[in-house]
Amino acid sequence: MTENPGQTKELGVALLGMGTVGAEVARILVENADDLAARVGARLVIRGIAVRNTERDRGLKELGLKKSLLTDDAEALVGRDDVDIVVEVMGGIEPTRSLMLSAFKAGKSVVTANKALLAEYTGQLADAANKARADLYFEAAVAGAIPVIRPLQQSLAGDSVELVAGIVNGTTNFILSNMAEHGDPYEIVLKEAGRLGYAEADPTADVEGYDAASKAAILASIAFHTRVKADDVHREGITGVTAADIEAAKAFDCTIKLLAICEKFTDASGAQRVSARVYPALVPVKHPLASVDGAYNAVFVEAENAGRLMFYGAGAGGAPTASAVMGDLVAAARNKVVSGRGPRDSAYAKLPIAPIGEVLTRYYVAMEVTDRPGVLSAVANEFSARDVSISTVRQQADTPDQGARLVILTHKAPDAALSATVEALKKLDVVTAVSSVLRLEGTND
Amino acid sequence: MTENPGQTKELGVALLGMGTVGAEVARILVENADDLAARVGARLVIRGIAVRNTERDRGLKELGLKKSLLTDDAEALVGRDDVDIVVEVMGGIEPTRSLMLSAFKAGKSVVTANKALLAEYTGQLADAANKARADLYFEAAVAGAIPVIRPLQQSLAGDSVELVAGIVNGTTNFILSNMAEHGDPYEIVLKEAGRLGYAEADPTADVEGYDAASKAAILASIAFHTRVKADDVHREGITGVTAADIEAAKAFDCTIKLLAICEKFTDASGAQRVSARVYPALVPVKHPLASVDGAYNAVFVEAENAGRLMFYGAGAGGAPTASAVMGDLVAAARNKVVSGRGPRDSAYAKLPIAPIGEVLTRYYVAMEVTDRPGVLSAVANEFSARDVSISTVRQQADTPDQGARLVILTHKAPDAALSATVEALKKLDVVTAVSSVLRLEGTND
Repeated sequence: MTENPGQTKELGVALLGMGTVGAEVARILVENADDLAARVGARLVIRGIAVRNTERDRGLKELGLKKSLLTDDAEALVGRDDVDIVVEVMGGIEPTRSLMLSAFKAGKSVVTANKALLAEYTGQLADAANKARADLYFEAAVAGAIPVIRPLQQSLAGDSVELVAGIVNGTTNFILSNMAEHGDPYEIVLKEAGRLGYAEADPTADVEGYDAASKAAILASIAFHTRVKADDVHREGITGVTAADIEAAKAFDCTIKLLAICEKFTDASGAQRVSARVYPALVPVKHPLASVDGAYNAVFVEAENAGRLMFYGAGAGGAPTASAVMGDLVAAARNKVVSGRGPRDSAYAKLPIAPIGEVLTRYYVAMEVTDRPGVLSAVANEFSARDVSISTVRQQADTPDQGARLVILTHKAPDAALSATVEALKKLDVVTAVSSVLRLEGTND
Repeated sequence: MTENPGQTKELGVALLGMGTVGAEVARILVENADDLAARVGARLVIRGIAVRNTERDRGLKELGLKKSLLTDDAEALVGRDDVDIVVEVMGGIEPTRSLMLSAFKAGKSVVTANKALLAEYTGQLADAANKARADLYFEAAVAGAIPVIRPLQQSLAGDSVELVAGIVNGTTNFILSNMAEHGDPYEIVLKEAGRLGYAEADPTADVEGYDAASKAAILASIAFHTRVKADDVHREGITGVTAADIEAAKAFDCTIKLLAICEKFTDASGAQRVSARVYPALVPVKHPLASVDGAYNAVFVEAENAGRLMFYGAGAGGAPTASAVMGDLVAAARNKVVSGRGPRDSAYAKLPIAPIGEVLTRYYVAMEVTDRPGVLSAVANEFSARDVSISTVRQQADTPDQGARLVILTHKAPDAALSATVEALKKLDVVTAVSSVLRLEGTND
């Protein structure tokens, strides 16, 4: 902290990145400077802004900031003596990770929104922060403005979290909500999402669930005090979800959502395991997550003592994400003022991560079958042969070629048994095609 | 902190009170001792439990706790050298306040669930905590297990909160939800709530809005960095809400909820003011708060950058409230371990509190009128005479005595103008009775 005799104390901030979020962070730091100073007990002063291209106009003048704050030497900026806190909103893995390690080495605290980096390197970064007695905050990495990291890490620190189920990707939620509302097919709605700015030119990270998987890894790590990486997360995207699936879900009083699920459970041997998975799933319309529509995010939590909680809000966007960054920045700054620190990374539990095959889930299976006697018996036989109990069977209107559509909901069974059943169904003569396999979540059966 | 050479560090906890919440806190401290130790970095050990009657069996044996932990000398317990953190779940104003001040004087941190005490004495208690460089945490005082104090105080510390609107009283929400679902009158549902344990023998604090007003004062204080006391909160209860009101609300696609509203606004002179108020209000069914039913609580927040957020969960009950207490206890303990401290009380903004008359609200007015030409014109005239703009007029089915029921929704207007209009309506010849006056919240008109 820089001491200015006779003046208010200052804390220096290095801003890495000046994209949508970075620009909003700079704006808030300038516009709310007095309030922030009162809340922190020191003035937050931007010492420099690291960008790739220092020539581009970034609206600094309108904010009353000097253009000379821009630098393309992020390493030098992070190392400056008058920088106390580094705000990383540049994204990417390298050189971002190295810059953060440099920051910790120099005793600076770091606030980041970088989910991909955290989902891979939280352990290394947290260790570096601990060694330096500095803070690593990352509320903005999951679900934008919605406070979810802090509630899990602090508010529920005396409880035992059993389930986190989140709608944490706005693009896919926009697509699925619109498919449900208008009955349009996936490809049409994806195009519309791109046109409206809800989907990127290459939507792979969103629609294939990579983005949600990173967030699931971060949420599971915190909820279960166990290191979970993106690769530990079972991942399925929404590209296979059809208008017919959404129709069928409605018939079961359900809607389809891309969920990031983090679950703690006791396996057959009595040991605790955790599971982290991302897939599109049927959710009963009465479940609080079912009504979270459009680009909104929500995170549903079940804890032993707190019971069922839900956090809802804007999951993306410059200003909402900047709000989360600013909350962390104020926390890190308050800690600098009192020479304290925030909650340390907690990974003591080291719970083993269960492969998807061992996880108990419910399946929704839609198939085209020949329309003759004995079909249901042959199909049901494949389920019972693998100890999978059927909850509901629904035969839908005959298809044009005189076949029929059979939709089955199962009770909970190990995912491996369910997926083996589906493979067996595909080989049955009476089954023309297994058109859809989705899970059903948010029920207690 | 007690140092045991060669052993894990210990932190001593004094538990004041052993009611529903206290018993759950003791249970969690015992059952989750190892996890808590790993999360805190020190073992949390109960040094004593202050109760009025030390003879009563409180299930300590089942928890493996010695009966000798019970004491009726709370002052001595709080003052013990081996007590680091005081958990106050005994309730009441005195001797509770004095005990908390003693705790701070001795450098101990305090975790409390005492909304009535906080709504009156937060300033004094926070000053004592600051002086001692100790922590005062109170997540459990508002909305049970739902993290709402910490999100407002920390997650949104870099944002500007504009509105907090909460369903923060489970008793009244149970009553209003049941009235809406079954169409039963208030008195019948209140009895049912009492029978099911959702309402106390004397339900005054809940149904007259005193409980919600305490919580509104706490929420407003934190959200606006301004000291707001329970007396500053405008308060109306739900005893006057009728089945007819709920019917009429449905006709406007609304439901009726008891809301605790904390709002920051700019007055006519351009100055910022805050308002805190509790009353039953019509809420559009599409608003996230409308679907919060039964004994659940929810807090809706609007902030300049974060946008709209909502926090939802169990608002009362032993285990949920204990979960919130435990989160605070872990936070206070972590701070003791690193000799740090949590966020200090922040009341720098000192915004003036607007009297209810100056607050802009929308009114719902139901009245019995004589069924003859010119009635609507006479009624409308009283609104326009006070610059109150009418949004919707609905004439309901004729009443048995050949009168009619007129229901009017207004646009936003100063509450004083609205209430003057209602007084004038009562004096009109054509108005037999003004049967109901409620506000409409959760719209942008």
